[in-house]
Amino acid sequence: MDNPIYIAVDAMGGENSPNKVIKGIEIHNSTSYNVYYNIFGNKNIIQPIINKHKILSKYYKIIHTENIIKDSDSPLSAAKKGKDTSMWLSIESLKNNESDAIVSAGNTGALFVIAKLNLKMIEKIDKPALSALWPNKNGMNIVLDLGANIECNEKNLIDFSLMGSALHKSLFEKETSKVALLNIGSEEMKGSNVIKNTYQILNEKKNDLFEFKGYIEGNNIMDGDVNVIVTDGFTGNIALKTAEGTANFITSELKKALNSNLLGKLSALLNIKNLKKFKKKLDPRLYNGAILLGLDKPVIKSHGSTDEIGFANSLKVCEKIIKGNLIDKIKKNIN
Amino acid sequence: MDNPIYIAVDAMGGENSPNKVIKGIEIHNSTSYNVYYNIFGNKNIIQPIINKHKILSKYYKIIHTENIIKDSDSPLSAAKKGKDTSMWLSIESLKNNESDAIVSAGNTGALFVIAKLNLKMIEKIDKPALSALWPNKNGMNIVLDLGANIECNEKNLIDFSLMGSALHKSLFEKETSKVALLNIGSEEMKGSNVIKNTYQILNEKKNDLFEFKGYIEGNNIMDGDVNVIVTDGFTGNIALKTAEGTANFITSELKKALNSNLLGKLSALLNIKNLKKFKKKLDPRLYNGAILLGLDKPVIKSHGSTDEIGFANSLKVCEKIIKGNLIDKIKKNIN
Repeated sequence: MDNPIYIAVDAMGGENSPNKVIKGIEIHNSTSYNVYYNIFGNKNIIQPIINKHKILSKYYKIIHTENIIKDSDSPLSAAKKGKDTSMWLSIESLKNNESDAIVSAGNTGALFVIAKLNLKMIEKIDKPALSALWPNKNGMNIVLDLGANIECNEKNLIDFSLMGSALHKSLFEKETSKVALLNIGSEEMKGSNVIKNTYQILNEKKNDLFEFKGYIEGNNIMDGDVNVIVTDGFTGNIALKTAEGTANFITSELKKALNSNLLGKLSALLNIKNLKKFKKKLDPRLYNGAILLGLDKPVIKSHGSTDEIGFANSLKVCEKIIKGNLIDKIKKNIN
Repeated sequence: MDNPIYIAVDAMGGENSPNKVIKGIEIHNSTSYNVYYNIFGNKNIIQPIINKHKILSKYYKIIHTENIIKDSDSPLSAAKKGKDTSMWLSIESLKNNESDAIVSAGNTGALFVIAKLNLKMIEKIDKPALSALWPNKNGMNIVLDLGANIECNEKNLIDFSLMGSALHKSLFEKETSKVALLNIGSEEMKGSNVIKNTYQILNEKKNDLFEFKGYIEGNNIMDGDVNVIVTDGFTGNIALKTAEGTANFITSELKKALNSNLLGKLSALLNIKNLKKFKKKLDPRLYNGAILLGLDKPVIKSHGSTDEIGFANSLKVCEKIIKGNLIDKIKKNIN
């Protein structure tokens, strides 16, 4: 029998919280086994919501606190106000070994600063990195760093390769991890010195943790030839958000085109099943949940504006990476 | 009456050249007025193609050369082999004031090196930048740099703002240029020191050339709130190519979804007019033509894999920026 899993849930962060958080827990609870929730936040708000949903009391514990960190708080002011907020307490429960992973839809900067204050870095890793899932033609990419580190050196990018492939393995056990460096050309001479040096090191030091596939350009990220894409946090953040903006632009143009006359509306209606399938494949809620790598416990950031389905998926990510022994895999890869 | 415009055309670069080049000239010629083409390449191949098309002989001159630069040539080996290639000769015709602008669908790196060897930089500009058009909800963005400079300092980014807004004005005379810096957050404290310093300078030095709109994130590039987006060449290249890859991914998924069963196919058929309109709005051929800014003559790079319609549009870009006095506008903005 599997060991029980305890997820610390900051119930108070993000839009429509704690409503979506509790609904997300209900959805996740209905499909998971042996997973328990430590819910941090205002009991007077949370308990009445839970009572309306089908979550057996054995599955959750509410740890009451009235203080919350707002999206408008700077990371430092959040950390100062911290100790009895739902975010701080939920991270602290990892430190005290009461929970195995934490998920929050709240203030991203605050989450990282408070996580770094409370949790230890994995030995030999200099900088934590923010990673996320990004769909490709054959499945999912892991992309990192997405904004935790604006500037990165060779050692950081190599650490990201090792952590990213560990994450990939813990989520997709049966696949081979294929790492590529995001660059502006596929030739060896392109890119900054840091990227070129990293290429040399990864290319020479063959390992059995992942296949190194060299450089990848932005237009090939979704081709599915690689599945772990490594870059500095500035570039990764811009790339991810540009993809998001492009997807929104195209789907809204498509909607406009299909609704522009009666015939269009009618035939779109006929086509609704196919269009729904299309929409589902691109649904950002399906890959909600960015993972902060490098700390000795898993810290997961849900998108602040996601709904209960997105939040349930970030709980699924927590469950998977605990069952997939992410932290052990990272430690093994680093050594 | 407008002055005649002479466009130097490297007929031998890119896929399916010189076929698509000549067809593109025919298309452009049918809608333009007082525009003449200096066509550089192998006359024995070019003349028979022209004879099959409706281009009056008064509109073109073929400058014969048998040597061409291949896509596989490195920029330096291309420059060495250079002097009697179609690319070199077409650029040289700008230097000799025989042409007003040059367009090539050939080797990008070679085009820039040969352009820099032959043409002067505009005074007070340190680095040329590669810019392109990118659709947004309200029209078109100018985005630069797209890969000419991997690393940029404050002066470079400010030059890019001035050159980009000049390009915007020369293409879209009636619009106000609104400049933003691509960054990973909208708060002043985010980003690298170079970006933060550039922000300060642009924010303090108000000017009547453009409105400075602060930072923009990747997901807002296509929102249409700004129209000149400034970044270093590494980030810009990754962002543009990521958008391209995302658009390809989504449209191919859409195609799959619409074709997945008979009902889908039928209703897509009914909807074909709307879908065509949708496709047209996103057609990359419509904004084909990247412009190298900073040299004292306009150098335009057509996408290598575009077709005659795309090539015709890059000729349209040439025509517009000559009529819009791009180079004068840049000089005025810089001073």
